[in-house]
Formats: sequence, structure tokens, C-alpha cells
Amino acid sequence: MTNNGRKSANIKDVAALAGVSVATISRYLNGELDRMSKKTAENVRNAIEKLNYVPNSVARQMKTRSSKMIAVIVSNVDDYFSTELFKGISSILESSGYIGVLFDADSDDDREQRLLKTIGSQLFDGVIMQPANNPQTITEALRRSMPIVTVDREIDDSPWPQVVINNYEVARSVSHHFVQEGYSRVVVLTSEIKKARTRQERYRGITAEFKHVDVLEISEVVHNHQTTYQQLLHLIQKNDKKTVIFSLKERWFLEFVPQLVFDRVIDNKRVTATGFADTDYARRLEPRLKLISQNPYFMGASSAEVMLNQLQDKSQKAKRIVIRAKFE
Amino acid sequence: MTNNGRKSANIKDVAALAGVSVATISRYLNGELDRMSKKTAENVRNAIEKLNYVPNSVARQMKTRSSKMIAVIVSNVDDYFSTELFKGISSILESSGYIGVLFDADSDDDREQRLLKTIGSQLFDGVIMQPANNPQTITEALRRSMPIVTVDREIDDSPWPQVVINNYEVARSVSHHFVQEGYSRVVVLTSEIKKARTRQERYRGITAEFKHVDVLEISEVVHNHQTTYQQLLHLIQKNDKKTVIFSLKERWFLEFVPQLVFDRVIDNKRVTATGFADTDYARRLEPRLKLISQNPYFMGASSAEVMLNQLQDKSQKAKRIVIRAKFE
Repeated sequence: MTNNGRKSANIKDVAALAGVSVATISRYLNGELDRMSKKTAENVRNAIEKLNYVPNSVARQMKTRSSKMIAVIVSNVDDYFSTELFKGISSILESSGYIGVLFDADSDDDREQRLLKTIGSQLFDGVIMQPANNPQTITEALRRSMPIVTVDREIDDSPWPQVVINNYEVARSVSHHFVQEGYSRVVVLTSEIKKARTRQERYRGITAEFKHVDVLEISEVVHNHQTTYQQLLHLIQKNDKKTVIFSLKERWFLEFVPQLVFDRVIDNKRVTATGFADTDYARRLEPRLKLISQNPYFMGASSAEVMLNQLQDKSQKAKRIVIRAKFE
Repeated sequence: MTNNGRKSANIKDVAALAGVSVATISRYLNGELDRMSKKTAENVRNAIEKLNYVPNSVARQMKTRSSKMIAVIVSNVDDYFSTELFKGISSILESSGYIGVLFDADSDDDREQRLLKTIGSQLFDGVIMQPANNPQTITEALRRSMPIVTVDREIDDSPWPQVVINNYEVARSVSHHFVQEGYSRVVVLTSEIKKARTRQERYRGITAEFKHVDVLEISEVVHNHQTTYQQLLHLIQKNDKKTVIFSLKERWFLEFVPQLVFDRVIDNKRVTATGFADTDYARRLEPRLKLISQNPYFMGASSAEVMLNQLQDKSQKAKRIVIRAKFE
């Protein structure tokens, strides 16, 4: 493209201006700077800048339809789960010459659609995402066919491969564990339950074991910390049953549980706390609390492996990979 | 490109296969789904998938040399500072029709170079980065001329605009504040100081006010929490001077200060703590500690504004914008 008569500069123009051979330019473009003098590299760089030359790799992409870039859409880059997921994805992609680039849906369905629209109009080779919208909305937003892998949030009868954790089972077995220990009531700390399938599954697992369930839903967009903390205290103290505070999201665990510990509300006797949490901060609280770890890095790595398979063989059937969360 | 005789499908092929007009296809591609029946949209989507058609916007990019995407490289996506920086950047870029895509240097200079190499060979319109490498290395890795804005880490005589905070001044005035309050010794909690200009500046500010300075450098790659905590305790207790623990990085503050509070080491009398910290968690500790907030969201927004100016007028001179950190 850049060398078929359009006015934009091509590699020959750069070579001419730099006063070196085309071979030298391509060595430079391949980063083989040890094969030329500092002065030559300097001249080449200046020529490229003067002519505002764009390497042919872009033209190559047009032919191969490949940029070696995979778009990764996470629900919120402020969540440790999301960034660890991305680090796991990147590690595997890069071992195969691909690179993961991160997009932030910022817990906003419309925003996810806008991002998909952009991604669909760019030369990304595939998309790995924590989906907020349903498959039809996602497909319509992308407006072209490309390999997709979803992770974390389960989609029923998904047209794409997905990597999820056993949300229902682990929430249920953890609840069972606390019921066995004599805890008869649970206070669930969560974002809006109906907005994410993951939360629904976890909530189902909890209600399958606990008879007395109180729920405190917190807005991810805006909430007043003190007000929410008072509501939480009120729920905990409204009767003297042995109570478990069960956080479905690490963000809420980190925001409220340390304060409950400091205020001596959590004693691991009358009141204890657990939840889905992957950071070290959550595990360093005293008294020690047993938590559910999902290993987002591993989930990311697994979804990247599935993506690489898709890229090699687009005819692959959609499969569902379940990662087992740990309670420890 | 996609319609100049190469074998790949063009918009006419899609229209033919879908049995609709080219106008309808372009409406579909522009997302104007309200202007066609669900059935038509369905047919178009299927035709696009069958022919694996890539919208012409890619071809348009080749002409305009614009993808409307800005690459953002942060030092570590696990740091709240980095993700807030990105959210600030995105908010401004998107108000002007650009989109920010995030790359993670993972605190690794070589990795930053690899990312720049990829970005240079792709159709990104510009780069906003927390630079780890020096300007020449960055330019050589990119291998083409594009607008660059650096943020957070200061570069002397930078060829590019940069947005930084007044690291030296704020570290010095905060140190002065504690000296006034009778604290005669400081223990600095930091990553390797010589690796980042930001830390050097902050350290300079501290040593300008404190005579007795102890430093605990922690590796970002790997460290043992308990061992490091014991070293920290040893430094604090090696004499009975009034001591300030001064963390140059929020990550270390969050890892060690809450434990010091829990262990009753920090009493705001003999021992207190401060540092650069932007999350709410850091501010919720009891006893309350005064902290330095950099407002990464605002820093990001500012760097995005500078980038937008660059995109409109590439001849702009490189300028240095200083954001004042708050101590509160």
C-alpha cells in the first residue's frame, strides 16, 4: 500500500534520503541496530521522521489481516482481579508472539459496546472479555467476525468458548462449612446482584445453605462509605445469631472488613467474614479469615490458551472451562 | 484497499450476498440498526461473517494514517495510581472521539521497549507513557515519528511534553512539617531508588530536611513479606527517636502500614507514618494519618489534553506541566 504510487513515502524514499541501502533500512526496522553505526541509525531515524514514513508492517497487516494484537476488555481496571486476569492473558499470548492490549469497560454496558465497535473496526486478531452484554449485543457491536473468548462471567449456551469458576459450588460449600461451625445467618456484601451472572451464581450457592440471609447491595458508581458502613453494622447487630459477612466482591471486602476488624466487630466467634478475595492485603488481616481465591492470573492464562487455539483453528467448537476456586 | 481487485471481499460483495443495497450495509456498519429490520440486520451480519469482511475503516486509516487510538503504557497495571491515570486519560480522549488502550510495562524496561516496538508498527495516533527508558531508547524502539506525552516520571530536557508532580517540593515540605512536630528520624519505604527519577526526587526532598534517614528498599519483582516486615520493625526500634515512616509508593504503604497499626507500633506519638497514597483504603486507617495525594486521575486527564493539542498541531513545543500534590 505504502509503495504502490500513493504520495506517502516508501522504504526506497527513506533509503535515498538517508543515503543508505534499502537493506539497511529494513535492518533498522527490524531493530538490528548492532549491524550499523550509531551515525547510520541516526540518519535513518531522521529520514523516517522527515518523511513521516509508516513501516510496511501496516501494509502487511492489510494482506495477512493480522496485527498480532488481542483486545482484552475487563469490567474495571481498578479491580485487582481484572489486572491479574490481564497479566495472565499477556504472559501466554506473548509466548506465542501475540500481545494483549487492555480496554476498560468501567462497569458500564454501553461503554463496553462502544469499545467493541472500535475494536471491530481495527485490526485486532481477537477479543478476550469479561462480558457485560449478551452475545447478540456483543456481535452487533463488533460488526465483523473475529475469535472471541469470554472469561469470568458465564454465558448460557454461549456461541464462544468461556473460562469460568465454579461460582455456585464454591459459594455453597463455603456456606456449608460455616453452617457446620454454627453460623446460622449470613450478611451478603455485593454489587447489584442481577447485573452480573457471577453474583447470581454465588448468591444461589449461599441461599442454598443459609436460612437467614441479609443482603447489602452497594453501587459501584457512587456510594457513601460511612452510610454504607452504618447500614452494615445495623444488619450485623439486628440480632445475636452467629453471623458470617460474605463479600461477593473483593472491592467491598477491602473497603469494609478491615474497619469491622479494627472496630472489634469481627471476632471469629459471634461474627466472622469471608468472601472472594485475591490480594495479599485481604489475607493479612488479624484475626486471620478464610477466603475464596479464584486465581485470576491462571484464569487469564487459560483463556489466552483457548484464544490461541481459536486463532489456529477457527472451526473449533465452543467449550466451557471451569476453574475451581480455593477456600483457604 | 479492500476493493481494488484483491481477492478479499468488499462492501459490494456483502450487499450482493445479503440481498440489500450498499447504503444499507454502510448504515449497518455505522450502527444505525434502527434504520433496518431485525431480519435485514441479521442477513447483513451473516453475509459479513461468511465473507469475513473487514470494514473499510481499516482502508480509511491507511489513507488518513489515523486509527483514533492512543496507546497508554503504564509501569504496572496492578498499581491503583496507574489505573486511575488511565481512567483520567480515557475520559478526556473519549470526549474528543479518541480511545485510550492500555499496555502494561510490568515494571520491566525491556518489556517497555517490546511494547513500543509493537505500538510503532501499528496504527496508533500517539503514545502517553510513564517512561522507564530514556528518550533515545524510546525513540529507537518506536522506529517512527508519532506524538508522545510522558507522565509522572520526569525526563530532563525532554523532547516531549510531560506532566509531573512537584515530587521534590512536596516531599520536602511534608518532611519539614514532621520535623516541626519533633520527629527527628525518618524510615523511607521504597522500591529501588535509582531506578525511577520520581523516587530520587522524593528522596532528595526528604534528606533535605531530616538528618537521620534510614532506607528500606523493597524489590517489586519478589520479596518475602515477613522478612521485610521484621527488617522494618528493626529499623523503627533501633533507637527511641520520634520516627516517621515515609512510603514513596502506595503499594508498600498498603502492605506494611496497616500491620504496624494493628501491632500498635504506630501511635502518632513516638511513631507515625505518611507517604504517597491515593486509595481510600490508606485513608481509612485508625489512627488517621496525613498522606500525600497526587490525584492520578487529574494527571491522566492533563496528559490527555496535552496529547490532543499535539495531535492538532504537531509543531507545538515540548512543555512541562507540574501538578501540585496535596498533603492532607
